[in-house]
Amino acid sequence: MRATSQRLADLGITRATLLVDRARCEAKIARFVQRARMSGVALRPHFKTHQCAAIGEWFRTAGVTRATVSSLGQAAYFADHGWDDLTLAVPANPAEADALADLARRIRLGVIVDHPATVAALPGPLQVWLEVDVGDARTGVPWDDHAPLADLAARVEAAPTLELVGLLAHAGHAYRTAHRAATFHATRERLQAARSHLQRPGLQLSAGDTPGFAAVPDWSGLDEARPGNFVFFDLMQLDAGACTVADLACAVACPVIGVYPGRGEAVVHAGAVHLSKERLDDGYGRLLGLTDGGFGDLLPGWTVAGLSQEHGVLAATGEAARAQLADLRPGDRVLIAPVHACLTGEQFGSYRTLDGAELPRYRRS
Amino acid sequence: MRATSQRLADLGITRATLLVDRARCEAKIARFVQRARMSGVALRPHFKTHQCAAIGEWFRTAGVTRATVSSLGQAAYFADHGWDDLTLAVPANPAEADALADLARRIRLGVIVDHPATVAALPGPLQVWLEVDVGDARTGVPWDDHAPLADLAARVEAAPTLELVGLLAHAGHAYRTAHRAATFHATRERLQAARSHLQRPGLQLSAGDTPGFAAVPDWSGLDEARPGNFVFFDLMQLDAGACTVADLACAVACPVIGVYPGRGEAVVHAGAVHLSKERLDDGYGRLLGLTDGGFGDLLPGWTVAGLSQEHGVLAATGEAARAQLADLRPGDRVLIAPVHACLTGEQFGSYRTLDGAELPRYRRS
Repeated sequence: MRATSQRLADLGITRATLLVDRARCEAKIARFVQRARMSGVALRPHFKTHQCAAIGEWFRTAGVTRATVSSLGQAAYFADHGWDDLTLAVPANPAEADALADLARRIRLGVIVDHPATVAALPGPLQVWLEVDVGDARTGVPWDDHAPLADLAARVEAAPTLELVGLLAHAGHAYRTAHRAATFHATRERLQAARSHLQRPGLQLSAGDTPGFAAVPDWSGLDEARPGNFVFFDLMQLDAGACTVADLACAVACPVIGVYPGRGEAVVHAGAVHLSKERLDDGYGRLLGLTDGGFGDLLPGWTVAGLSQEHGVLAATGEAARAQLADLRPGDRVLIAPVHACLTGEQFGSYRTLDGAELPRYRRS
Repeated sequence: MRATSQRLADLGITRATLLVDRARCEAKIARFVQRARMSGVALRPHFKTHQCAAIGEWFRTAGVTRATVSSLGQAAYFADHGWDDLTLAVPANPAEADALADLARRIRLGVIVDHPATVAALPGPLQVWLEVDVGDARTGVPWDDHAPLADLAARVEAAPTLELVGLLAHAGHAYRTAHRAATFHATRERLQAARSHLQRPGLQLSAGDTPGFAAVPDWSGLDEARPGNFVFFDLMQLDAGACTVADLACAVACPVIGVYPGRGEAVVHAGAVHLSKERLDDGYGRLLGLTDGGFGDLLPGWTVAGLSQEHGVLAATGEAARAQLADLRPGDRVLIAPVHACLTGEQFGSYRTLDGAELPRYRRS
């Protein structure tokens, strides 16, 4: 803990700062690129996780040429950084039709639809995916609801500026099950079944979710894979068994501002506005070590037990953690592994790598 | 619901946008300023709620000349906008001592301390408040822990560049009790008792929390009041009984992107990155009407039942809400009252008023 604090001070950490372990990110990008190649599937990683042009370049260097985003603003940002093949994987928003049209004139832009009113409002030229609900019950037409899918397909095909390219699903329920591989297989089968019923064998199948794609090595039978969180991973993925501690690649470094040995707690200046209020049963984050080689192990006995707007309450349980707490002082630094890296990243304007580089992120205006 | 959607479209809403009802904010500022005057207490409102120079001007117009902030970055932002008397009400961070010193040369800057190591690290010239824990058990020295308080007071007095100005408490536990007035009274008594034990009758007493100060009209016996959330209020405060629906002054306008009558749900493009994951028992937010006169009533039967990164799932319960759902289409707009306005505000770069003005906010870099 003391060595981690010193390394963070040496890195120049004075306030809550988002750190990324670049070597870990690149190793995971290579692993997922390799898995996609072996499976004969195109990797279209979801960039909502990092929203960072420099991290996008790490993907490009590994051979990735297309990406997924979750807002028109993200799409425009990555288009400005040379990405010319993007899918906006949130149901297209009729209220943004004009801005969609502007962007679609600059790059190859894919959108997803699940409602006739959305198809009617879409400008062109757009690649259109029908969103299929394979069990998540968030957005999309249920995979076995054949009539509405056929109706949507016909409406897209009838629109002169729209191109129907495939069926797309996000198996968000893979985050809520211990049976991640089974969820992956069911997702693939349901997409295939929906395509068969549509009698359009040329349609592509696109699926995405890190837990499922991390669980299954062979993705064949799909055309496109859209996992995103894997570039960072986080405690939620660790809890789901989708990664190991050695995969965690994004964390919040922050200063200790209060120490309360009597109640077994310390307080850091990193709160809900830095970590987000995403939580697991054991809290809002855990402490991570920092070694000369990069991020280290989780520190046993330490959790982020509470969050207010700017304060994080660290709880120390057990003899080792209590001894570390007794040694802690305001001005020390700690490193917090977040529960959900995508939401934590969204709270910052940039990342800092372990060699001190500052990588700006996209930010909504 | 249809009229609200039309008004939001007329306002130019195409994506998630933070709206403020300026007339409501100004009425509440006037109410709290008046209450402070009647009580003979200085109002030092917490600006972490809005973090917006333009909204700061609404306070200044009402006669407020000092404010509270929760980070050094916020302090520098408001100093740049002409605020020259600020208190940073999070325990001072020894790792930011240099930046504190820079700012302290420009304005009258107050900080709070609860640890000898922090006092030792502080530069000058600073106004120093001893933070007293009056029951919240987050930061501060327990109010009846007399020896550490006396020790801290002596250390501050011994530092040539520090001025000991008073005792400061945040009764955060007022958010977790039905007995808000009792919590206010206990806070005041405990601060007074701590001062008596210190035998320094000249020390000022500062307390802050919207639920307590909203519950009690007479604040006398304190020197300074630091509520903040009242300028917006939110569902958490409504739930606590600290405000009425007519006090809600900040909400997220956003587009509908999916409609699922079969499961009684609709989906908006406003997720955890817009609303924050703060929740109450009934979810992450509720729908609000918009009238020609400003924000209207809550729409019965509608809640934000789920949030993912960019999606919000609206659930419609009961006949009226189900009928509204049947009439809803992608491209419609809705207005969501947030659970915790401070965290929701933090997700945006600006506010929009109902007459279309864009008010930029401070953003952490």
